[in-house]
Amino acid sequence: MNNYGIDIWGDDNFIIKDGKVCLKYGCEPAIIDIVNTLQDDGYKGPLILRFKHLIKKQIEQIYKSFNKAIKEFEYEGSFNAVYPLKVNQYPGFVKNLVKLGKNLNYGLEAGSKAELLLAMAYNNENSPITVNGFKDKELITMGFIAAEMGHKITLTIEGINELEMIIKTAKERFKVKPNIGLRVRLHSLGSGIWAKSGGINSKFGLNSTELIEAVGLLKENDLLDCFTMIHFHIGSQIHEIHPLKKALSEAGNIYVELRKMGANSLKNINLGGGLAIEYSQFEKSPQRNYTLSEYANDIVFILKTIAGQKNEKEPNIYIESGRFVSANHAVLIAPVLELFSQEYSESKLKLKDKNPQLIDELCDLYKNIKPANAVEYMHDSCDHLDSVLTLFDLGYVDLQDRSNAEILVHLIGKKAISMLSAKHLLRTQKEVQERYLVNFSMFQSLPDFWGLGQEFPIMPLDRLDKNPTQSASIWDITCDSDGEISFDANKRPLFLHDVDVEKEDYFLGFFLVGAYQEVLGMKHNLFTHPTQICIDVNEKGYEIESIIESQSIRDILEDLDYDVREIDEILKERIENSKLIDDRSKKQILGELFIFIHDNGYLKNI
Amino acid sequence: MNNYGIDIWGDDNFIIKDGKVCLKYGCEPAIIDIVNTLQDDGYKGPLILRFKHLIKKQIEQIYKSFNKAIKEFEYEGSFNAVYPLKVNQYPGFVKNLVKLGKNLNYGLEAGSKAELLLAMAYNNENSPITVNGFKDKELITMGFIAAEMGHKITLTIEGINELEMIIKTAKERFKVKPNIGLRVRLHSLGSGIWAKSGGINSKFGLNSTELIEAVGLLKENDLLDCFTMIHFHIGSQIHEIHPLKKALSEAGNIYVELRKMGANSLKNINLGGGLAIEYSQFEKSPQRNYTLSEYANDIVFILKTIAGQKNEKEPNIYIESGRFVSANHAVLIAPVLELFSQEYSESKLKLKDKNPQLIDELCDLYKNIKPANAVEYMHDSCDHLDSVLTLFDLGYVDLQDRSNAEILVHLIGKKAISMLSAKHLLRTQKEVQERYLVNFSMFQSLPDFWGLGQEFPIMPLDRLDKNPTQSASIWDITCDSDGEISFDANKRPLFLHDVDVEKEDYFLGFFLVGAYQEVLGMKHNLFTHPTQICIDVNEKGYEIESIIESQSIRDILEDLDYDVREIDEILKERIENSKLIDDRSKKQILGELFIFIHDNGYLKNI
Repeated sequence: MNNYGIDIWGDDNFIIKDGKVCLKYGCEPAIIDIVNTLQDDGYKGPLILRFKHLIKKQIEQIYKSFNKAIKEFEYEGSFNAVYPLKVNQYPGFVKNLVKLGKNLNYGLEAGSKAELLLAMAYNNENSPITVNGFKDKELITMGFIAAEMGHKITLTIEGINELEMIIKTAKERFKVKPNIGLRVRLHSLGSGIWAKSGGINSKFGLNSTELIEAVGLLKENDLLDCFTMIHFHIGSQIHEIHPLKKALSEAGNIYVELRKMGANSLKNINLGGGLAIEYSQFEKSPQRNYTLSEYANDIVFILKTIAGQKNEKEPNIYIESGRFVSANHAVLIAPVLELFSQEYSESKLKLKDKNPQLIDELCDLYKNIKPANAVEYMHDSCDHLDSVLTLFDLGYVDLQDRSNAEILVHLIGKKAISMLSAKHLLRTQKEVQERYLVNFSMFQSLPDFWGLGQEFPIMPLDRLDKNPTQSASIWDITCDSDGEISFDANKRPLFLHDVDVEKEDYFLGFFLVGAYQEVLGMKHNLFTHPTQICIDVNEKGYEIESIIESQSIRDILEDLDYDVREIDEILKERIENSKLIDDRSKKQILGELFIFIHDNGYLKNI
Repeated sequence: MNNYGIDIWGDDNFIIKDGKVCLKYGCEPAIIDIVNTLQDDGYKGPLILRFKHLIKKQIEQIYKSFNKAIKEFEYEGSFNAVYPLKVNQYPGFVKNLVKLGKNLNYGLEAGSKAELLLAMAYNNENSPITVNGFKDKELITMGFIAAEMGHKITLTIEGINELEMIIKTAKERFKVKPNIGLRVRLHSLGSGIWAKSGGINSKFGLNSTELIEAVGLLKENDLLDCFTMIHFHIGSQIHEIHPLKKALSEAGNIYVELRKMGANSLKNINLGGGLAIEYSQFEKSPQRNYTLSEYANDIVFILKTIAGQKNEKEPNIYIESGRFVSANHAVLIAPVLELFSQEYSESKLKLKDKNPQLIDELCDLYKNIKPANAVEYMHDSCDHLDSVLTLFDLGYVDLQDRSNAEILVHLIGKKAISMLSAKHLLRTQKEVQERYLVNFSMFQSLPDFWGLGQEFPIMPLDRLDKNPTQSASIWDITCDSDGEISFDANKRPLFLHDVDVEKEDYFLGFFLVGAYQEVLGMKHNLFTHPTQICIDVNEKGYEIESIIESQSIRDILEDLDYDVREIDEILKERIENSKLIDDRSKKQILGELFIFIHDNGYLKNI
């Protein structure tokens, strides 16, 4: 049986029972059962399920690993973490995260004004807030207000001009001041596709000259006490631990140097994010070459060593892992609407009394194919199809001949595959893949697949006790040919079941979609963020805590700044002016339109 | 002087006058003057300018070219066009387009329920509507309602099951019926990166077997009269005309065959979109190898030939060009906030009485560099920097030494470049590029650059009478290292001016962003769609017709389904509970927050 790599990417969060993928937690409910309940309540189209216990698990794992390392190495600094809001700002995630992290003083990171405002509203008291990214006077003022409200906030400076603005703001405002962090530009390079955020040419941070200048400015303006943190970030989803260790040595030495220059309040090193998630579904070559406890141990050990050598205070550790905390809590569920190649059956063949020679030859190939010649005959049939298509373009054969050729080639392919050895099989599967039309928008729900080729584990929610036989490509419902996850024998050999979706439902789950995919979602064809359901799994069962329905057509048009009342009026007027139907019918269609416009735009078959 | 390839991509729409880029229309206003006026009115951050006359120009060009070809070849079919809403659904574009296309009966294409609703509201009477993409019962019902309202609508069928739903719906509803189109799946392949939307394995359309089946079903159910159109689409932004010609032969033969099977109402061939735009800025190797009139002539000629050979009625032609119509009407304007490498000046060098040997050697290199050894010395200095950085990590040199090394290497690089011949220059320019921080989000405003590497012409709005000397990388303001358009000597050799942005403004224009970029915009870091300004240029001047401001922070949080009143309440309560400031100050900061939350989240420096 195919377990869809659940042992590689699943992190022990899921288990297959009775052919269904279940949560390995509490009463271990099957995801398909949850989905069926939601369907019965009328929720159709794609769904995002959020599992609270998975958020909790990730937060606790991070604190546990670091606190263990701190104890083991008798480290004197503390461990602190903040969640970077940019990874997922949706309330169903953020509000739960804040609640679940309260007793650990788990904080928030903001990279823009809107995110800082969220942090100011929802961050737990006594939990840290950090603010990264480029800042103007407004954003800096917001940082001061946060401090004035009582938040433990640190503004990370990305350039000298930001520091100058802080100095100016400090003079204008009240006594309370935010803490100041300096982002250092390290020459050590990260690894992985997001590597360029580290390195000497990186987008962010101060070089040595600027660091010295910054300390000078802080001293001059009596603000050196506010300077408490240095920050660096070597890249997102780092696959190897080695570059982090190098960067940490460099940052540790900068920490020590800055303290020697008189920065006595500097006591925190913020390592940014980067803690990776295992996304790979098919290969036993995991993307991440380290464990969380190795990560924690290395960080604590290196910082302890440097501080010891230079006889400086061991710094407090801050991390800003976002992907690690959010990726696995969300599962996208989407129903299969149609399988496209089921149309080629022998019954559709309509041979004439006299067929073109190529069609007769295709019939012979179909009749005489056997294991010894299967590959050869299959290739021959493809050549024949090419010839028939060319003859059609030139007007020598008709549409019925063309249809017969298409069907015969398909039937020959199917027969060949049933005869082939496993070795030949995979190579030819690309040719005969089944296309699964799925009720979701790839642009809205998996933007990183479109933009970066990022893989996400995909599996059916049930039938896992049956062997999936179809090499599968997945199509979304947008009018865009890029909306496809194509079968790839080497990289993405996804097999799915042969189901008749007119008779029975077939749902796919897209896993690990909790990081970045939601906020990066694109409104292609005006498809909107799917309906979100927050679920609390416990020993006795599961509870649906909240449902936020996908935006209605009316709301999305309003978002684009259409005057929706104007649209209502125009539609009404146009219906009233129609000469094609009577008055009673006009009332009916006005009512129908009213219902459609207040519903979301996804397909509703399933 | 650098004209930024305006002669390659500009299509005679822009002209450089007095060092400023101007519209080559009406009174030829300079874009920078328009932007300065908007700035004076308080609009800061990125802006999208929409020029009405450019929409008009594109629509008229299409009709003119086809009508000319029809006249020349004495073609008996008519020419019709619809605009596919998915390319840009924003009201500032769509409402103008509909007005400007009214006398030509220019119609609309919809690919989803929300788009169909827009078309039903705003399409001109007597202009066609086409509906492509996958459909459920609801969408089909909406299509029937459109027909009942009096719209000339054609529902393009993507699969047999959709036709079955139409047949069912027709039985349930009134006498009026929409027209039916069949999307045909061609074996001819498109070219260009969007090619896979054509071809026998394409996501869309019916194969020959299904076409025959469809005609059978239509006959059986007395709906053959409604079947008026076949549709195909070989891909977006097609660079070569050849595949289109091949596809047209194939589709033409299918048209003829279907008519011979009794489909007597079939009289339209819809070619979909694909008409390309020239985006390339730097190379004299244009992406498009055909002109609009060649495109029109080829289509008319091929269809005429096939119809003649088979003695069938010459079909009416429909096209669905979106990119061609929308791309050039919009220009994104964003101010430069900072130049990053201006920090390395000789004055910052703080040499010690006794320096590490490597620093002394760097000083010697700087002193003795001359044209004959410039490249060699530059490379030597980079090696020295590497060594100094390693010594720093190991604790052998201090932060001041590291700073001195950074400055010296930078100074050596600058001196070397001033000495180099043009031949050596470009190669080394990559190393010493200037980073321009620009007040926009690449994810929000140029998603196709992120996702597909699609180039867009970029140029400063003024100073075009001065030589730009800096090899430039562009950084956006997101907290994401992917938010960068990096200098590429081969592909993207963008040079910009050396400006002190603390003293004078410097604006960049990103051109041809009117197609797809707006609706695909991602809310990374919660940055929203920029402020849009619709401008009517005429002989006397220009008029600002409408301004739609960028979403406020409050609105974006509401979009994420936050309860914004709850946020207001929490912030108020937290401010009131603060023990750090007095009551009067509390009122002040509440007022400040209120202003921020009702403003958009972009930086406000410029």
